[in-house]
Amino acid sequence: MKKHIYIYSPSSAVRDKSGFKRGVVRLKSMGYEVEVDPDALAVHQRFAGTDETRLAAIHRAAASGADIALISRGGYGLSRILGAINYKAVSKAAAGGTRFVGFSDFTALQLALLAKTGATSWAGPALAEDLGAEDGPDDIMQACFEDLVSGQAEGTGWRLPKIRAMTPTDNGKTSVDASFSIAKTAAATRRTGDFQVKNATLWGGSLAMLSSLVGTPYLPAVKGGILFLEDVAEHPYRVERMLTQLLHAGVLAQQKAIIFGQFTHYKLQPHDKGFKMSSVVEWLQQRVKARVLTGLPFGHVPTKVLLPVGATVSLVVEERDAFVLWGHQH
Amino acid sequence: MKKHIYIYSPSSAVRDKSGFKRGVVRLKSMGYEVEVDPDALAVHQRFAGTDETRLAAIHRAAASGADIALISRGGYGLSRILGAINYKAVSKAAAGGTRFVGFSDFTALQLALLAKTGATSWAGPALAEDLGAEDGPDDIMQACFEDLVSGQAEGTGWRLPKIRAMTPTDNGKTSVDASFSIAKTAAATRRTGDFQVKNATLWGGSLAMLSSLVGTPYLPAVKGGILFLEDVAEHPYRVERMLTQLLHAGVLAQQKAIIFGQFTHYKLQPHDKGFKMSSVVEWLQQRVKARVLTGLPFGHVPTKVLLPVGATVSLVVEERDAFVLWGHQH
Repeated sequence: MKKHIYIYSPSSAVRDKSGFKRGVVRLKSMGYEVEVDPDALAVHQRFAGTDETRLAAIHRAAASGADIALISRGGYGLSRILGAINYKAVSKAAAGGTRFVGFSDFTALQLALLAKTGATSWAGPALAEDLGAEDGPDDIMQACFEDLVSGQAEGTGWRLPKIRAMTPTDNGKTSVDASFSIAKTAAATRRTGDFQVKNATLWGGSLAMLSSLVGTPYLPAVKGGILFLEDVAEHPYRVERMLTQLLHAGVLAQQKAIIFGQFTHYKLQPHDKGFKMSSVVEWLQQRVKARVLTGLPFGHVPTKVLLPVGATVSLVVEERDAFVLWGHQH
Repeated sequence: MKKHIYIYSPSSAVRDKSGFKRGVVRLKSMGYEVEVDPDALAVHQRFAGTDETRLAAIHRAAASGADIALISRGGYGLSRILGAINYKAVSKAAAGGTRFVGFSDFTALQLALLAKTGATSWAGPALAEDLGAEDGPDDIMQACFEDLVSGQAEGTGWRLPKIRAMTPTDNGKTSVDASFSIAKTAAATRRTGDFQVKNATLWGGSLAMLSSLVGTPYLPAVKGGILFLEDVAEHPYRVERMLTQLLHAGVLAQQKAIIFGQFTHYKLQPHDKGFKMSSVVEWLQQRVKARVLTGLPFGHVPTKVLLPVGATVSLVVEERDAFVLWGHQH
């Protein structure tokens, strides 16, 4: 029997209709049955329909019985409806086998779901920009997605960036395109050496969404966890300010590991004078006991792995190889 | 005896040295004795010196015995040193007659000071961009500043914007420069009519800074308060997301009035399709019992009044005139 994928729009209106269509075609060509929510292309201001429309779409996705409930795109729109989502219905669907997949704005729903019910959802692609990418879906993303659909996903691994001296430079470099800057330039762990965290809750997603939940009932109280973070178009000083909030709120002291995914599409300024994303990573490592890792292939980038938000996982670091494992073999 | 003004740099490095110098000259020409902190022009990366340098500057300002301790500029830098500020020393200085004045990033210190000690500080200008403005300081700002220095400041008033229909339009307008958009285009109060709040705590400042304190020990727990907000270069959807955090954290339900200052220098996009700052004001008014007012002349704009953060004030609305009063006459 074909696996069943339900497409819906809980956040911003779909503007890239070609990407949307390409994504649907691609999923069908991969052998899946694709069901598109009746309001997947709705538009109200910048949203995919009114708050009521998007809530109904989320609840239809939960009632769909699909193997995968996949967002069409992120953007903005979940924050304002967090108080009206039927988390029990979503949790029940998750327990019944529907995997909720998405990222970016979707982080708000994922963390609220975890806070309210403990249910697991999946940090992963969106339909339009990932599966419907103009030059085809990224190979790694597609393989991870297919593993999830087939039930074979058991973990993910990546190569940690080389350790470098982190002395801040003060060279007044101008306007650098800093995409992938962490993976390319950041020092990885200051404290090196093999490292393991067994049976910890994996959680995280967009740092902006996560920090916007601090102090609200929608932030899960994860202790001894493994926190992964990514974001787009946030200058390092804003990233640091958001991390500061997590630090001052006591969230980071509760974690055993903090993993930086990709922070992309920001612009450094002459005024930064050597303050860059690696400065923030370095600053953070000096302030937390948790091991800080970088280079996770997840974020607003084509190559993204899928990660179970709320699942019990193990983290294994061996030299420069890092693994997050949630299968039964560890 | 000349009034004594102490200039220091707790946040970003001063880049506009001409503005800085013009500000000092201007203050002297206004008849004040101006003392410049030895590290006021220090530079470390994007900061006005290392964390230790800026902390020492804050503590020197507190020990200066000045009538006014005025920041050179805002930017970013206070968040990461909030845990190391000697709030008792600042509070003691405030009780001894030193008024701490600033805005933007300075909001973090002001709110933390209020949370930790209950001391009042002043939302007002910065040296370089306001008193050192290239074409001279704004008249209203300067008059308010002089009133504060001379001890004559007793309140401030402004004209509320006209009430307009707030039906969201869906006209796909492109890239509007939205400076002053609330004052110019937003509906003011949906619930109209005269209105008073007596003896309430006035607090607020930069919305980004305030929301970055939610869930931390540095957010004051103000009940029955009057909250004023402003920010720069934050798109309405981000403003809404920050307000959502305050809403979900229960902060807004505790306020009797919420006053929008100026939100400026953001760009609407075609994708917004009628979602604009007034949509956010409208959305907020539907979700809180507090009266929502707009048009306060405060923010990242030349014309800014001075406001006592943490003081007990009264708010009076009579037709389209609004007053915040902290003098003895009310």
